[in-house]
Amino acid sequence: MSPFANTPPPPYYAVIFSSTRTPVEQGYGETADAMVELAHQQPGFLGVESVRDSDLGITVSYWADLDAIRAWKQQADHQMAQQLGKERWYGNYVTRIAKVERDYSF
Amino acid sequence: MSPFANTPPPPYYAVIFSSTRTPVEQGYGETADAMVELAHQQPGFLGVESVRDSDLGITVSYWADLDAIRAWKQQADHQMAQQLGKERWYGNYVTRIAKVERDYSF
Repeated sequence: MSPFANTPPPPYYAVIFSSTRTPVEQGYGETADAMVELAHQQPGFLGVESVRDSDLGITVSYWADLDAIRAWKQQADHQMAQQLGKERWYGNYVTRIAKVERDYSF
Repeated sequence: MSPFANTPPPPYYAVIFSSTRTPVEQGYGETADAMVELAHQQPGFLGVESVRDSDLGITVSYWADLDAIRAWKQQADHQMAQQLGKERWYGNYVTRIAKVERDYSF
């Protein structure tokens, strides 16, 4: 499977989620996998790219528009995961919402 | 050192560079380090976050405006690194240029 998101021609939106982890593993992997699966079912979801090393994780999800991002942020199971993320799994995080204006590939 | 870019309040720009690597190591690490150092000296550079695992790398650099991104793309040493990147180090890559409209952190 390609690790690249198969996004349409711009414009579309990116949610750039950068995070550090706590040492707590309990439930993390299962929840992360479940959230990726759930995101795929959301209207307006375009794809996701995700990498983590020992210092930092970056997950970029791509969306058709801001309404799709808003709906995903408020989805009930995702809200529970966000809460657990703050309590257990993430040391710090930054979320940036950005409009992709141009892209090119090689 | 924090792995997070210390960006100002939006709006600002993000260059999301997702890539797969070839097995070729020759010159890669030195060039990558030199490019990060050089980027820091560019006008309008705001910060960078970078992660690579065995499947994918994501580097997000942050810039004040599109002119700063254009100047960085055309910087002479960076152009040479981009050329070597295509020839040697990267299997595939996607570059996305996006305007950050909102951010929040924890």
